Amino acid sequence: MNLDTPSITILRSLLASNRTAALATLHDGLPFASMVPIAVASTAAGLRLVTHVSRLAAHTRDMLAAPEVCLLLTAPESAAMPQALPRVSIPALAEFIPPEHADYAALRTAYLARHPQAADLFQLGDFSIVAFTPLSARLVAGFGRAHTLKPEALAAVFQDDIV
Amino acid sequence: MNLDTPSITILRSLLASNRTAALATLHDGLPFASMVPIAVASTAAGLRLVTHVSRLAAHTRDMLAAPEVCLLLTAPESAAMPQALPRVSIPALAEFIPPEHADYAALRTAYLARHPQAADLFQLGDFSIVAFTPLSARLVAGFGRAHTLKPEALAAVFQDDIV
Repeated sequence: MNLDTPSITILRSLLASNRTAALATLHDGLPFASMVPIAVASTAAGLRLVTHVSRLAAHTRDMLAAPEVCLLLTAPESAAMPQALPRVSIPALAEFIPPEHADYAALRTAYLARHPQAADLFQLGDFSIVAFTPLSARLVAGFGRAHTLKPEALAAVFQDDIV
Repeated sequence: MNLDTPSITILRSLLASNRTAALATLHDGLPFASMVPIAVASTAAGLRLVTHVSRLAAHTRDMLAAPEVCLLLTAPESAAMPQALPRVSIPALAEFIPPEHADYAALRTAYLARHPQAADLFQLGDFSIVAFTPLSARLVAGFGRAHTLKPEALAAVFQDDIV
């Protein structure tokens, strides 16, 4: 996948450690940015990002109306210049996963592994699992270290981490 | 503006301290999320957020094609549940500010106050100041503490901070 080792390490850390992402949705035809809790799961169909959202939230209604979204995972701010801050933009398709879906249990498990305090929210009827299928990824691993990646590259980097 | 004191403190911190924001743009008709360095400035026309971006960047081309964007400023991740993480979504209009613009000096000064290492980038011909005029704001100051604000409320909170 033509990623240098430091870039692989950075991408792995973003995927394996970040607990939140910025979510860009289409809201009445205009871009909107909100925050979502995030986890990453390996499913039979490939790598998915996963969140757990209230049906009352504006971004949930946005995703129901237009599943084309984009996630941004960013490293914590530091004293370094923001331009060097590691981050990855992941255009994706959002899919609402009902409890009877074959992947529901695996997605729920991956989500709760990163967000154990969220267990109670699964008792609430108005919360849904949403799975994001990456369409591509744009990684900026530092100054002059930008890479456009296929979804398979995300999966390979993440799976190496959990083996 | 009907903001409780803890929410004012949180909004002030996001506006005055965050060095980066997530930027949602329209990219070939679909939402895209990227990271931008950010600062906040008081201008004669009101509060502006300001960034400094390369014309080579995809989000810069997006903003040239469609100035309707949205910024998201989020508090650092913590052990708390992400749902309680303070953040503010700011739908805004992006405007490219040439050096001869009346507000250029004030915007540049505000930007460099938060990003002193960026001074050298102002020597590069392909970087531009972009000012964001807020259209509204959606503040989530914690569990059950969501507020929809007018741009004037952002300005009032920020100006109190710098008096």
